[in-house]
Amino acid sequence: MKRVYMDHAGTTPVRREVLEAMLPYFTERFGNASTIYSYGREAKSAIEEAREKVAHLIGADPREVFFTAGGTESDNWAIRGIAHANKEKGKHIITSSIEHHAVLHTCEDLEKEGFKVTYLPVDKYGLVKVEDVINAITDETILVTIMHANNEIGTIEPIAEIGKALKKLDRKIYFHTDAVQTVGKIPVNVDELGVDLLSISAHKIYGPKGVGALYIRKGTKIKPFMTGGAQENKRRAGTENVPGIVGFGKAAELAEKELMEQYEKLSYLRDKLIKGIMERIPHVILNGHPTQRLPHNVNVCFKYIEGESLLLNLDMKGICASSGSACTSGSLEPSHVLLAIGLPHEIAHGSLRLTLGRDNTEEDVDYVLEVLPGIVEKLRSMSPLFPSKGGN
Amino acid sequence: MKRVYMDHAGTTPVRREVLEAMLPYFTERFGNASTIYSYGREAKSAIEEAREKVAHLIGADPREVFFTAGGTESDNWAIRGIAHANKEKGKHIITSSIEHHAVLHTCEDLEKEGFKVTYLPVDKYGLVKVEDVINAITDETILVTIMHANNEIGTIEPIAEIGKALKKLDRKIYFHTDAVQTVGKIPVNVDELGVDLLSISAHKIYGPKGVGALYIRKGTKIKPFMTGGAQENKRRAGTENVPGIVGFGKAAELAEKELMEQYEKLSYLRDKLIKGIMERIPHVILNGHPTQRLPHNVNVCFKYIEGESLLLNLDMKGICASSGSACTSGSLEPSHVLLAIGLPHEIAHGSLRLTLGRDNTEEDVDYVLEVLPGIVEKLRSMSPLFPSKGGN
Repeated sequence: MKRVYMDHAGTTPVRREVLEAMLPYFTERFGNASTIYSYGREAKSAIEEAREKVAHLIGADPREVFFTAGGTESDNWAIRGIAHANKEKGKHIITSSIEHHAVLHTCEDLEKEGFKVTYLPVDKYGLVKVEDVINAITDETILVTIMHANNEIGTIEPIAEIGKALKKLDRKIYFHTDAVQTVGKIPVNVDELGVDLLSISAHKIYGPKGVGALYIRKGTKIKPFMTGGAQENKRRAGTENVPGIVGFGKAAELAEKELMEQYEKLSYLRDKLIKGIMERIPHVILNGHPTQRLPHNVNVCFKYIEGESLLLNLDMKGICASSGSACTSGSLEPSHVLLAIGLPHEIAHGSLRLTLGRDNTEEDVDYVLEVLPGIVEKLRSMSPLFPSKGGN
Repeated sequence: MKRVYMDHAGTTPVRREVLEAMLPYFTERFGNASTIYSYGREAKSAIEEAREKVAHLIGADPREVFFTAGGTESDNWAIRGIAHANKEKGKHIITSSIEHHAVLHTCEDLEKEGFKVTYLPVDKYGLVKVEDVINAITDETILVTIMHANNEIGTIEPIAEIGKALKKLDRKIYFHTDAVQTVGKIPVNVDELGVDLLSISAHKIYGPKGVGALYIRKGTKIKPFMTGGAQENKRRAGTENVPGIVGFGKAAELAEKELMEQYEKLSYLRDKLIKGIMERIPHVILNGHPTQRLPHNVNVCFKYIEGESLLLNLDMKGICASSGSACTSGSLEPSHVLLAIGLPHEIAHGSLRLTLGRDNTEEDVDYVLEVLPGIVEKLRSMSPLFPSKGGN
């Protein structure tokens, strides 16, 4: 059976070149980077080389890049670390209602500690308004955290505009963005975005799972999240995951080199896929912004059907897709993102996310377009909600 | 040049069998374990198989094992998670003065939040006294955290005795042990030890860096450390590091199978190494307990010399060793462990830790015994502190 993987926003396979770069650091170059003998020194210099590559991809100084265990740790560190280090200045945080759970649940946790959090609404495309951010600021505000692009619907937020508006204020409010979905997919530059903190994950860009990074602008007052040894310039304790970090560096290097080529290819496939679905299947809604959108993201709702049945039927045809985000699949609730853009519960339940990647071909898109209409039709024919003939 | 690696308490190479088990999960089986399609389900079942293996190694129920990014995260989670979930019951924590920095610095951090911490002294062998633990308990005590064995001097603490004594109390005080150095080296059973929480690291047992686990006994009231997605039964967010977890499982399986055989081999080599150093080099102190000691740990102080010069000279002869722990190598301070067992600063500076592993042979031990006396003599001849002839 043909296998078509279209869940690249969930995770990506490790590229051959990345795995090859990692392999020596599991075995012959296994030294602990915090030791002074030669095994350790070669691990240390491999980490520093990777740090330079990751920094280069986001236009940062390598000394501002700190390796973590992934995007979730980076988000936790950024938000908790700023909150706890700056609570004397104020206890108010501004975020959006469509953030990843790593941001939302962390903010909710801080509310239990006495912090106040504003969850900004978004428009029907999932866009946060710059003026909403500015209007939400109080004397107590210490942090704004808005994602660079949404992991479910692919909408790219106006981060640079928010960054500019925050810079015009007469006092410093830290600005964090979860850029897990954008780094390596669209150009990301920390200075152009005007952010102080930015979260990245390796496994979204063909690097290994279990490694990520937090960009922390020089001069930012932030508490460590994990305490212990003196690793990562005393800011993130724990024996460095040397093979993971080396793989992350290689993945970052390749992502940067191939960014525009991949952007063009993926946008083309995305547009073909969206157009094909819209033409072939009735009662479909495209979720997310039509143009201000990640190049690899397709997210649609099929009225009258249920996302999970759709996924299982696609899986039987060899197609891997998701409904909402992987991180929320444990839950029966419809996606908080789809509800936030104004979809009713019953429609939000029928969502499908197809996220393209570098191995996808035009034939893959054609195959999905060939298989999907029949599955939707079959599921609708079994649905008590579906108006049997030409209804709306 | 011959290369002899004797820093296995710092880190270990990934075993061939472990790497082979991991490899498919980087590439063809790269699915996100939180998804429902077949790629995801096979990742999920690989994680559950690994969880069973790790649980089996420590005599736990798999549902009580939670994967983390390593020993440091496990320690942070255990201590912060218990402290924050139980602060209404009291804000007092008991630990020892020779814990790993992942425990000590975390406790110090909690002190800044208003927790009180008792740092128990140890005897000259590095042993914590059971009665000291019990005597330190107040109405406010919520947690006791004592390491299973010390990472520097190898002394094995009376954890089972402390666990028994805590069980006799009329109220529940949670008991955590950092078992990063003991799991896979000596038999570890969570029920025999009487602990509620136990930290493990994969890279100390020939598994990969960047993955560990926290054992949490059923019924334990603990807050999540990382918030976000619903992974790890909603207790530890973040996309699962599938290859890392699979490697950890394989390493745990092999460690359990070979435990007694390795214990005997390593103890023999350790004793030969200690005896050889004592016979060949004057003015040497053995640090740690003479018998209640990890099978692979040798830690000695050479009077009148400086540990770092010793390490660099050993490295030039192809011998990888450490002075204190890898995690403290960023610091110029002498080891807090050696100071806690009563060594003066100038002697603590001259420490050497040699930790044996499964690839070490009797020839490796002979080589160290051949090379080490000359290096010590050379360094002493350059030391202004050394009494030139037969002094003490």
